[in-house]
Amino acid sequence: MVLADDFHFSGLHIAGNTSNAVGSRVTPVTVAQLPGLNTLGISIVRVDYAPWGINPPHTHPRATEILTVLEGSLLVGFVTSNPENRLITKVLHKGDVFVFPVGLVHFQRNVGKWNAIAIAALSSQNPGVITIANTVFGSNPVIDSDILAKAFQVEKSTVEQLQSKF
Amino acid sequence: MVLADDFHFSGLHIAGNTSNAVGSRVTPVTVAQLPGLNTLGISIVRVDYAPWGINPPHTHPRATEILTVLEGSLLVGFVTSNPENRLITKVLHKGDVFVFPVGLVHFQRNVGKWNAIAIAALSSQNPGVITIANTVFGSNPVIDSDILAKAFQVEKSTVEQLQSKF
Amino acid sequence: MVLADDFHFSGLHIAGNTSNAVGSRVTPVTVAQLPGLNTLGISIVRVDYAPWGINPPHTHPRATEILTVLEGSLLVGFVTSNPENRLITKVLHKGDVFVFPVGLVHFQRNVGKWNAIAIAALSSQNPGVITIANTVFGSNPVIDSDILAKAFQVEKSTVEQLQSKF
Amino acid sequence: MVLADDFHFSGLHIAGNTSNAVGSRVTPVTVAQLPGLNTLGISIVRVDYAPWGINPPHTHPRATEILTVLEGSLLVGFVTSNPENRLITKVLHKGDVFVFPVGLVHFQRNVGKWNAIAIAALSSQNPGVITIANTVFGSNPVIDSDILAKAFQVEKSTVEQLQSKF
Amino acid sequence: MVLADDFHFSGLHIAGNTSNAVGSRVTPVTVAQLPGLNTLGISIVRVDYAPWGINPPHTHPRATEILTVLEGSLLVGFVTSNPENRLITKVLHKGDVFVFPVGLVHFQRNVGKWNAIAIAALSSQNPGVITIANTVFGSNPVIDSDILAKAFQVEKSTVEQLQSKF
Amino acid sequence: MVLADDFHFSGLHIAGNTSNAVGSRVTPVTVAQLPGLNTLGISIVRVDYAPWGINPPHTHPRATEILTVLEGSLLVGFVTSNPENRLITKVLHKGDVFVFPVGLVHFQRNVGKWNAIAIAALSSQNPGVITIANTVFGSNPVIDSDILAKAFQVEKSTVEQLQSKF
Repeated sequence: MVLADDFHFSGLHIAGNTSNAVGSRVTPVTVAQLPGLNTLGISIVRVDYAPWGINPPHTHPRATEILTVLEGSLLVGFVTSNPENRLITKVLHKGDVFVFPVGLVHFQRNVGKWNAIAIAALSSQNPGVITIANTVFGSNPVIDSDILAKAFQVEKSTVEQLQSKF
Repeated sequence: MVLADDFHFSGLHIAGNTSNAVGSRVTPVTVAQLPGLNTLGISIVRVDYAPWGINPPHTHPRATEILTVLEGSLLVGFVTSNPENRLITKVLHKGDVFVFPVGLVHFQRNVGKWNAIAIAALSSQNPGVITIANTVFGSNPVIDSDILAKAFQVEKSTVEQLQSKF
Repeated sequence: MVLADDFHFSGLHIAGNTSNAVGSRVTPVTVAQLPGLNTLGISIVRVDYAPWGINPPHTHPRATEILTVLEGSLLVGFVTSNPENRLITKVLHKGDVFVFPVGLVHFQRNVGKWNAIAIAALSSQNPGVITIANTVFGSNPVIDSDILAKAFQVEKSTVEQLQSKF
Repeated sequence: MVLADDFHFSGLHIAGNTSNAVGSRVTPVTVAQLPGLNTLGISIVRVDYAPWGINPPHTHPRATEILTVLEGSLLVGFVTSNPENRLITKVLHKGDVFVFPVGLVHFQRNVGKWNAIAIAALSSQNPGVITIANTVFGSNPVIDSDILAKAFQVEKSTVEQLQSKF
Repeated sequence: MVLADDFHFSGLHIAGNTSNAVGSRVTPVTVAQLPGLNTLGISIVRVDYAPWGINPPHTHPRATEILTVLEGSLLVGFVTSNPENRLITKVLHKGDVFVFPVGLVHFQRNVGKWNAIAIAALSSQNPGVITIANTVFGSNPVIDSDILAKAFQVEKSTVEQLQSKF
Repeated sequence: MVLADDFHFSGLHIAGNTSNAVGSRVTPVTVAQLPGLNTLGISIVRVDYAPWGINPPHTHPRATEILTVLEGSLLVGFVTSNPENRLITKVLHKGDVFVFPVGLVHFQRNVGKWNAIAIAALSSQNPGVITIANTVFGSNPVIDSDILAKAFQVEKSTVEQLQSKF
């Protein structure tokens, strides 16, 4: 028998800790945190940004995202697929809403002087997150540097420098 | 060619006017307000509540809803389908999240002393809203009072009194 | 190994007992009664109506309904979603077919002198039924009468009178 | 603006003319006959059977079917897919319900002494019908008899005899 | 924890044994052979054809097929649904691609002098195969010859001759 | 009226030109090249690899991929989503099949001495391709190097060096 607690999550008012390399923190509320979402096709996250913090380029393999700025100003962007690879950007302020279509690479950057906060909803109870830098240069085990050198058209040493960060 | 503005909506920081009979206001951001949502299966709304305001019992015929309290305290509830018709309720505070499964009757009530604010995401770009009272007693034209008298097991005069409010 | 009985249900020729407050009875054949329907996205019900009986306003949270009149005459109707709340009605006779789109509030009323019978198919093996009156005024526990008084814009005493019927 | 007539079809009480080679007639109510079904994922048909009439082996490429016997007695069956090709059959009487899963070959035969009638619902507004005999031996133009002779492991003359019937 | 082997299948370079009545062989790679396909909505098969071999008329109840000729020349065709039953055919050569829409009856025939090979992808991890001849004349148990005689408009003896082959 | 040519594409036997920076070439057969695929949820591509050529890390925002090696030997891999970012790899030989789940970053590399060829099917008629390097470092206009420097935790000069290649 379902209970109210199956449909409830607490704590999204708490600022995430942005003391990290990218200056942002995502607090997820997906089916892993809120079991009542199972089969219902939606979830939500809070994102905190330190001044100049970024939410680095990433994709959600199974969801579209709709983001609302609660506090601060964000530069947001996504890149269309091949062959255009067109960058679509917008500076958002408090109360602005922006859509990142399913599977496309997107990012946000705090362009204000203070902390910024956003709420983003995703069209899956289990959207998944693929942070491009971690996936490509920080996988476990690492992708062979020969492959990445050719993909990014740089020296292997540059790839290995990038890999050493993750 | 798509433009950034196709994916952008502005104004969700503005409090909705709650000077009405129920003391609440929904500001929607669906495909009607944000064309870039087309086919993407998600949308978002802001809800403002005056002290003691309610978002009256309603359903979304095509979407599950996940609601986050931004300010204040809300009593929220939904009723399960036949034959149980069990009422599931929870008092939510700032930062609490709650799920209303697709098609079920649900409501919110401000139980704090001040205005309350929520953001709710819906799993459709065109979720629809059916406010029970307006649909049942305020349709155009009205549903025959004989039918409603039998459905609600009251006198026709009681039904007509209810209908006169809408 | 599947057997013929997994795909078979018997008894839809038996008239439902309409000796109840609304003068109608629904006999369902969903995945609960017919396990072979699992994952197949369809189900069926028989509805019996006493003279002047009604199938009171209700919704199916997960299905569209297509109804066929086998015997008698029915007034049928559904109400469109906000903001129109337009009532669409039709008097149906034997052999008439009518569609109730997913999630919308709809009803039927026997407008003939004799019993009426309908067969209705639903686009889910588990469509769910939400009878508006029972859900709103007869949930367990009840919805606070303050909330319903505000939603229906009547005195609390009127709400309590309505609640006392369920 | 939608009208009641967009959701209405009339005439399913009229017996189909079964004076044909197979002794049955299907009267469809799909999106072609009832435009309001568009996108709603359901449709309905009436089937009439002369005594000893059959609804010959066929498939619906885009729908599961749930059939209810209104009058008479039917032998119904479907065949599971490769490699079992198991025939699942049942004799149905008035009020019996049977399911034919999406895409499987199925048939009905009147095994009573009088006319039989069934109502069948399908899980698509445009289910399609592929009558095996007509498709395989009566296509326009015909499938090369060499191909069919090999498929059915008979002489070309037998195939040509079969083709001559359609 | 998923392993590489969950996503891997080996052996599609091996020619299937076409020493059978129809002179063709299908080697499937569906979820039954490759568990990692589960829920992912795709599968693949290799088809080998002896000279003059055929892949006899069949349907996939849950998938569209896209076929690519790797070696040889094939006559391919499908038949549209009722009432047209139109045969659409094409002679394909190495490197040609052809689509068979979901649920429609289709076939291939080697029209070259040598063995032919095709790779076909299907839009389900569990597409199913219904070989018309085996299903209709070779089910277990058999469909009553009276039914098939009427469906194919031939003598029962012709039906029984057809059934004796399977 | 549909014609055979609507369902037909020619030319997949022709080797793609791999004289480019990555030593590979994808020849797509999606709805853009083959209109008959519309709404059918599948497509196919040929991939050619020069010796040591790679198909660089990329995702398909709307499709799972199933790849079959026709000639040569390929190292293939994909990376799971956050937080594991686990690299799953396999060396494939002629006749081997491998699955890349929807939206995950994946790649192939020719590890043989000669040209390699693969056929890959995708679970959408319009799967989309996002080549990570081009999207992140070669979009038009470019993503601000400050953002990428922080995302990849390198100097802006390293980012600008990477961007200068595209």
